[in-house]
Amino acid sequence: MPKTYAYLGPEGTFTEAALRMLMPDAPAGSLVPCSGVDAVFSAVRGGAVDGGAVPLENSVEGGVTATIAELINGDPLLIGAEVAVPVEFTLFARPGTMLSDVKRVATHSHALAQCRGWLAANLPHADTFTVSSTAAAAQAVSEPGAPYDAAISARLAGERYGLAPLVSGVGDRADAATRFVYLRRPGALPEPTGADRTSLVAFLPDDHAGALVDLLNQFAVRGVNLTRLESRPTGDGLGTYCFCIDADGHVAEARVGEALMGLRRVCREVRFLGSYPRADADTELTPLLPRGGTSNADFLAAEQWLARIRAGAVA
Amino acid sequence: MPKTYAYLGPEGTFTEAALRMLMPDAPAGSLVPCSGVDAVFSAVRGGAVDGGAVPLENSVEGGVTATIAELINGDPLLIGAEVAVPVEFTLFARPGTMLSDVKRVATHSHALAQCRGWLAANLPHADTFTVSSTAAAAQAVSEPGAPYDAAISARLAGERYGLAPLVSGVGDRADAATRFVYLRRPGALPEPTGADRTSLVAFLPDDHAGALVDLLNQFAVRGVNLTRLESRPTGDGLGTYCFCIDADGHVAEARVGEALMGLRRVCREVRFLGSYPRADADTELTPLLPRGGTSNADFLAAEQWLARIRAGAVA
Repeated sequence: MPKTYAYLGPEGTFTEAALRMLMPDAPAGSLVPCSGVDAVFSAVRGGAVDGGAVPLENSVEGGVTATIAELINGDPLLIGAEVAVPVEFTLFARPGTMLSDVKRVATHSHALAQCRGWLAANLPHADTFTVSSTAAAAQAVSEPGAPYDAAISARLAGERYGLAPLVSGVGDRADAATRFVYLRRPGALPEPTGADRTSLVAFLPDDHAGALVDLLNQFAVRGVNLTRLESRPTGDGLGTYCFCIDADGHVAEARVGEALMGLRRVCREVRFLGSYPRADADTELTPLLPRGGTSNADFLAAEQWLARIRAGAVA
Repeated sequence: MPKTYAYLGPEGTFTEAALRMLMPDAPAGSLVPCSGVDAVFSAVRGGAVDGGAVPLENSVEGGVTATIAELINGDPLLIGAEVAVPVEFTLFARPGTMLSDVKRVATHSHALAQCRGWLAANLPHADTFTVSSTAAAAQAVSEPGAPYDAAISARLAGERYGLAPLVSGVGDRADAATRFVYLRRPGALPEPTGADRTSLVAFLPDDHAGALVDLLNQFAVRGVNLTRLESRPTGDGLGTYCFCIDADGHVAEARVGEALMGLRRVCREVRFLGSYPRADADTELTPLLPRGGTSNADFLAAEQWLARIRAGAVA
């Protein structure tokens, strides 16, 4: 049976674009749009699809609450891959529409927040409306008798719904990007590539002073760099938080494995979310080389030394 | 061949008293006085004796420089046991001497420092002289034509050299104690007792900011309590230090073993000095129970969890 993949729909979303980057060889028919992030998780958990793509965080807006809540709760899924997609917003309208005709603009609330400056400068008198996704906005504008004159969406969505681009690059931040992750059911992990990321959720043991420093030190002493740390409510009432963590490295590496064991010992619960290749492995955003004394060889040498001194030898 | 043990002599020193506490069944003839701490180390290293006792630190004076220098440098020896001996100073003289006759008092420099208050109050006009040990002071006083009228020494020394106690308890601090260690050549370590101490010397990798915090964190994240931390010159010029460390626990315990492996990875060199039963195991000076999440069972559970998540299972 050919593999199928769910994504946050409708057709033409940035998530579809991300999934196409993650699965370049997947035939068009194998991609299944879902009406919400929770529906993607359900489809993957229930086995209706082999995997799925959801947005995890945006460089302007931050974490995507719906995705993080699903990662923290419910049956665990693993992140199998990630991709960062530049968020390029385009103003689309039905063919023949002029910019001066645009009085009503539809888009997603996150997109609206990222285009406010351009709208204020260029369409100061237009009304704005938020719908469930930028693709849904494009779809709505394309329909006969549409209540909107234009949509702000990804290029993919405008083209998919037969709209004409009026203005491209209407986002206020040219370098905005969204990080998408590929979800899968638990099973054999991808091999380490030398430039991997490990994601997890740590639930602190209790509310003692220094608890977060204790947690961070579990990584620091093994030379494991964190690339993301976000506190999120666990859902168990106000004031109860967990920490969503992305760390450099693969759980198969000694330094990461030992840090995770340390976390497991001192935390109430640790939910492992996967080790997978970094999307930015070819950039210089963060140093990928571990600090001295933290390579697999260093750990092995230390282990052999410990065995010797435990046996009463002189180092 | 019966076992023999070296100690810092001459006969009657506090070190002899300590060795008798450490080896209560050793016949008198098996104890060999040495003329200095370095001579004790040499006798043990060279195999002339089976082990030896030296003072390591005093609760008033601090670390014993000669002992620490020998532990840091030269062929490594292991500490096999420790004992804390209350330092009770007694003023001894030849029988028939009255306190008012005492004009010249001999003792060791450390003892003199600990009896200054009593001497100033009770023998303000007496001259003081320092010799190589408190026992040597007692021996000197006992000899015909001695240049001193009295010695400050341990009870053992005064009795050994046939002197009469004039005043006991002449130390300024009634609770002063010296910690002695038993030295042995490398070989099988004593089994963990549940209340052990581990000693080592750590040589920092380089002089970067935070290097000592990094070192201390290797212990902290595994819940290993330090009972002593002393910086000492390595001997390689001014400004080059190493750290003499005593930690709670036995190297055979998972938390201690992992901390030592961490130290080994991040330090230029680590010299292991032994794991042995604590002399103060029955006191309440320090908590002996490890912090939550740091027992051998906790480490084993974390190791098993890591194996599961590395295999792609859900925790």
